[in-house]
Amino acid sequence: MLDPVSWKLNNGRVIRNAQDAPGELNGKLRLIDQTMLPEKLHYIELDDVNEIYDAIKRLAVRGAPAIGCAAALGIAATAQKLPDNLTPNEFISRVTDLAALLNSSRPTAVNLAWALERCTSYLGSHPTTVKQHKVNLIRSGLAILAEDIKLCRTIGNHGVSLITPGAGVLTHCNAGALATGDYGTALSPLYVAHENGIKFKVFADETRPLLQGSRLTAWELSRAGIDVTTICDNMAGQVMKEGKIDLVIVGSDRIAANGDAANKIGTYSVAILAKYHNIPFYVAAPYSTIDMKLNDGAAIPIEQRDPDEIKNGFGRRTAPDSSNFYNPAFDVTPHELITGIITEKGLIKPPFKTAFNALYA
Amino acid sequence: MLDPVSWKLNNGRVIRNAQDAPGELNGKLRLIDQTMLPEKLHYIELDDVNEIYDAIKRLAVRGAPAIGCAAALGIAATAQKLPDNLTPNEFISRVTDLAALLNSSRPTAVNLAWALERCTSYLGSHPTTVKQHKVNLIRSGLAILAEDIKLCRTIGNHGVSLITPGAGVLTHCNAGALATGDYGTALSPLYVAHENGIKFKVFADETRPLLQGSRLTAWELSRAGIDVTTICDNMAGQVMKEGKIDLVIVGSDRIAANGDAANKIGTYSVAILAKYHNIPFYVAAPYSTIDMKLNDGAAIPIEQRDPDEIKNGFGRRTAPDSSNFYNPAFDVTPHELITGIITEKGLIKPPFKTAFNALYA
Repeated sequence: MLDPVSWKLNNGRVIRNAQDAPGELNGKLRLIDQTMLPEKLHYIELDDVNEIYDAIKRLAVRGAPAIGCAAALGIAATAQKLPDNLTPNEFISRVTDLAALLNSSRPTAVNLAWALERCTSYLGSHPTTVKQHKVNLIRSGLAILAEDIKLCRTIGNHGVSLITPGAGVLTHCNAGALATGDYGTALSPLYVAHENGIKFKVFADETRPLLQGSRLTAWELSRAGIDVTTICDNMAGQVMKEGKIDLVIVGSDRIAANGDAANKIGTYSVAILAKYHNIPFYVAAPYSTIDMKLNDGAAIPIEQRDPDEIKNGFGRRTAPDSSNFYNPAFDVTPHELITGIITEKGLIKPPFKTAFNALYA
Repeated sequence: MLDPVSWKLNNGRVIRNAQDAPGELNGKLRLIDQTMLPEKLHYIELDDVNEIYDAIKRLAVRGAPAIGCAAALGIAATAQKLPDNLTPNEFISRVTDLAALLNSSRPTAVNLAWALERCTSYLGSHPTTVKQHKVNLIRSGLAILAEDIKLCRTIGNHGVSLITPGAGVLTHCNAGALATGDYGTALSPLYVAHENGIKFKVFADETRPLLQGSRLTAWELSRAGIDVTTICDNMAGQVMKEGKIDLVIVGSDRIAANGDAANKIGTYSVAILAKYHNIPFYVAAPYSTIDMKLNDGAAIPIEQRDPDEIKNGFGRRTAPDSSNFYNPAFDVTPHELITGIITEKGLIKPPFKTAFNALYA
């Protein structure tokens, strides 16, 4: 039985009993503040919509699937504080407003909108008391989390055959356990291969400006006992030239109907470098990342972020104020540079449009 | 007339009178400590061989031509302190030992060895008193500096026609005024175009790990009134895709006889990205950078640098100790990715080997 105050999200995992929980169980969204890694493992506990908005906006929680889980459990946590004496319609209206606010925190992540829409539309289509609506929101959040955990594993199972003994694997940004409910997307085949006793080497692009590769991917892979080497983004070409890379796996925040894939800035460059060196380039993402309403990647909005991330990103001034700055958060890798897309439905090969349509049919 | 205590190197420029010199003229090598830019404009004055070795090693002075000038004037400054009562042969032997030490500070920069060899061999072939040897060393150093200033301008004149009104120019690392005696190599065509009143935009890769692009190139170009935008290295592909770049110009530390060019790590990746987008890719360097003894780039040694530059480069931990690190200082761009090489002898087009041989004949 679900108790609204007996759950926690701990690094994307639900804690339901005191043994696993270092603190009190309080019905709050509990997350690692990823901006503090790798220096400090610090948890934050949130049930205020503005705090949750802020956590998503400032990338304390990031990665499309983790954002979806955090938003779903976040809306559940914050909705618990709404007055029980609202009418059900008033309650749904308030929750919808809260969801709209959370939805505006990151414009590119389709999972965010998808998760919030699922939670709120469930309320509308299942009339009941406010108290039961509150429980249902937690149930929806936990269901989304459980599904994410399952699909991460499934992606890993579909991708693990790519990780052969002795392979060198390049990844960009963090599409790992920290970015999802469990195991990640791009990193899931690596975790599964590691579980299977396969030895391989990972090269992690540090991923400027926010260094998700060095701070997060190198942290979580080495913590799991996987051999990982951190490089600067501009070293990827050289490492490929030296024959150290057999395949690239990256995540994606949004995939268009033709297979064009938006991901962290720099992914597009890595894909071109892989093509030049004849190295296969894979995208791993939940099937929900595919947005069939978008014909191609040109329609994917590219978020521009604060210049300060470039000029002052390490707590130390690294560029003069007299410079201009350009700081796109994402780029779009065209489908012709992508060897395959790994989802929970399998390893999808080009032509992607045909394959996606077949899966949707 | 040359007075051994009346000269200074100020940001690669000789100061010979008190009006231009903020400090006392003392016969020391005077340099901007580039590791402190853009936060602080700080000068260092050196006449101790270990300090000069250290300044080159830790990149307080960097860029192949500037290293050559600094080594030549550095050996001149440090040699002034040798006893006047040495025999001329003893003096030359001591200077040769000091030069060998300085020469070991950076293995890739051919200008370093070339400048030191020129200064010391001049002594051997012009027998005279120790006192006159000391003056001759300063004269050699100043001559190398003057020639560098002249050749930078000449490179600019040969490259300026590439900079058309409204052009977008991408550069990597810093091959500018800070890297040479004056105007730089890659940046010289930009300074000349700017002098000619041409309006254009520069995109500067920040150039991890040491950020010479954001710290130095963006600093010196914006200081000169040139429109410059700093981007992270992994944004170059996206900026090219958006049509913002019409040509790439980079410097080089060493060019093999076939045109393969060593330059700051990441240059190779930029060249591949330019090729993919059909953007011309130019290398600008003094002709002395061409090493006809090297058949191709495979023979160019690639210096590996301290992992701390990646994991702790800004005084803040950005990657876990549990990660491995790979930190090559340079990469080699194969000649087939290079559209042209701009030297003081002109704009050289492929096939480079034939062109170089013709210029040497």
